[in-house]
Amino acid sequence: MSNFAIGVDLGGTNLRIAAVDEKGQLMEKVTLGTKTVLGRDHVLNDMCEAIRHASDKYKSSGELLGVGIGVPGIIDLQTGMVRESPNLPGWSDYPVRNEIEKRLGAPVILENDANVAAFGEKWLGAGRHVGDMAMLTLGTGVGGGLVLNGKIWHGMTGMAGEFGHMTVDPDGQLCGCGNHGCLEQYASATAIVRMARELITTGDAPGLAKAAGADLEFNAKEIYNQAIQGDEQAKRIFRRVGRALGIALSAMVNGLNLEMYVIGGGVCSAWEAFSPTIFEELRQRAMVYAATAPADPLHVPSGASGQVEPGAGRKTIITRALLGSDAGLFGAARLPMTR
Amino acid sequence: MSNFAIGVDLGGTNLRIAAVDEKGQLMEKVTLGTKTVLGRDHVLNDMCEAIRHASDKYKSSGELLGVGIGVPGIIDLQTGMVRESPNLPGWSDYPVRNEIEKRLGAPVILENDANVAAFGEKWLGAGRHVGDMAMLTLGTGVGGGLVLNGKIWHGMTGMAGEFGHMTVDPDGQLCGCGNHGCLEQYASATAIVRMARELITTGDAPGLAKAAGADLEFNAKEIYNQAIQGDEQAKRIFRRVGRALGIALSAMVNGLNLEMYVIGGGVCSAWEAFSPTIFEELRQRAMVYAATAPADPLHVPSGASGQVEPGAGRKTIITRALLGSDAGLFGAARLPMTR
Repeated sequence: MSNFAIGVDLGGTNLRIAAVDEKGQLMEKVTLGTKTVLGRDHVLNDMCEAIRHASDKYKSSGELLGVGIGVPGIIDLQTGMVRESPNLPGWSDYPVRNEIEKRLGAPVILENDANVAAFGEKWLGAGRHVGDMAMLTLGTGVGGGLVLNGKIWHGMTGMAGEFGHMTVDPDGQLCGCGNHGCLEQYASATAIVRMARELITTGDAPGLAKAAGADLEFNAKEIYNQAIQGDEQAKRIFRRVGRALGIALSAMVNGLNLEMYVIGGGVCSAWEAFSPTIFEELRQRAMVYAATAPADPLHVPSGASGQVEPGAGRKTIITRALLGSDAGLFGAARLPMTR
Repeated sequence: MSNFAIGVDLGGTNLRIAAVDEKGQLMEKVTLGTKTVLGRDHVLNDMCEAIRHASDKYKSSGELLGVGIGVPGIIDLQTGMVRESPNLPGWSDYPVRNEIEKRLGAPVILENDANVAAFGEKWLGAGRHVGDMAMLTLGTGVGGGLVLNGKIWHGMTGMAGEFGHMTVDPDGQLCGCGNHGCLEQYASATAIVRMARELITTGDAPGLAKAAGADLEFNAKEIYNQAIQGDEQAKRIFRRVGRALGIALSAMVNGLNLEMYVIGGGVCSAWEAFSPTIFEELRQRAMVYAATAPADPLHVPSGASGQVEPGAGRKTIITRALLGSDAGLFGAARLPMTR
């Protein structure tokens, strides 16, 4: 007998719903398509039906504590409305939280998707043994989340954690946000493909040109494949990824002195290609890292963070996420358990 | 009848001691020279004598709650020792806190000087009406402090707040910390003089060259005088200061979404010369600032932050410090009142 909550990952492509008990045990996970073309109400119906189905199924095993929903966009935490979400057209200025609460009769919490991913990794993933942590999610864009004192740090208006828009190159690539040289322009999957196409254009990257020509969906994964096969230009792209992440992380390490910084998202599969450069940059740029770094950052044994002594001797750990795309589901389910 | 605490600002040049009551009223302030050449014990004797004198004088008016000491360096909060302080040779690896507690019979708290300045501005200065805030102190170097949930944010090992070593130009000026392009290399008094000398060397800054030639102690204040008299090269230097601060602040605003960011320290006297560039940079670089900026950031009425509505409509405020060099004294005195 264990109480449980429902976590929802409302992506632009997939709608995923999970029932998770208080101990973090996954009871059930369902993946549906997010039928955004059929409109908001259709997606809401699909979501509520799946939630109701799961909660009915497990109501004999414990109480439904509530529903947490991770949304790709800016959330107004007080009203439970989506303020801005490019991937969910028609969702702004609609009382999402209240509408779902009314339909389900259970408490609902809306939260930014990068924040719930950080919260999930803190609860059950890379950060499960540490105190305060930040997470960068490298996907189509670069999201971020901050967990301080066991809670998501929202800041004044719920917009904290936008680490993807830290400036890492003041005169660099123009970003959709209007800034030049945002981290997102160097460390997202989109950026990796852009950098590859830039290199192809120069004519100096025959390996990448061939891969791009053969593949209609030339993507970051393909570029990573080129890198592990030894293509120098592909390797160079991932060094740029690592450099940008190292610059951003060094500012976070110096400013916040957290115990752990987690890198997640799809691009994380290329960890071996970009992480050595992160550590090089950190050693050079982050005085606080140099003073608190583990001897061999690339080979921190898993679970090591739980064994280190508290106090001044503690180490700053930079590591990859452990839960993959489930981080957001677990983090979302955790929300109603901890509010 | 009001209890009180003693705040100490242990600088490399001046040793300042203040008695402050719980309401923030300054009862007495004493400034002595820090006789570092006579050795640590001499300075400790001077300090303890002045503290004892002040506490004896006011013991009839209330209880001495303790002593807070702001130190320019890295403090080990658990042991109360100075871990690293270039301006206080011979203070490392000595049980400073325990020694002073023994002599005075009162609780003593050691804290980094930039942290106590932030804490002072939060208590009685620019941040007195706001929630969470960060402060940058622009002096010989650039220090930083973070006050979250009413407390100094120390991070894992007490090193948080090193915003002066955020990278604002990845291939820029070499910093004493080993990094290239730290904020400190563009926004400290030292950096302002360096940038002026660089311009003089090019031969394109006759006004600055003249000022430097006439003044044996050519300093940031003199360069500011040139700027307000209309010297283009001097004005250009302060735009560089503002740009570097804007890049660093935009990362802080995007990542932390705090209510207020305070700029203090001696360089702050040149606020009119560098702050317009800060706001230009923020509008371009910080999406969270753009979403939460007051209409006219240069003319936020004093105390305005106390009048704004709570909730999503709240504004990010970037403003100058109000307490000058007393911020550290007040912040240090506040430590024993709030622990």
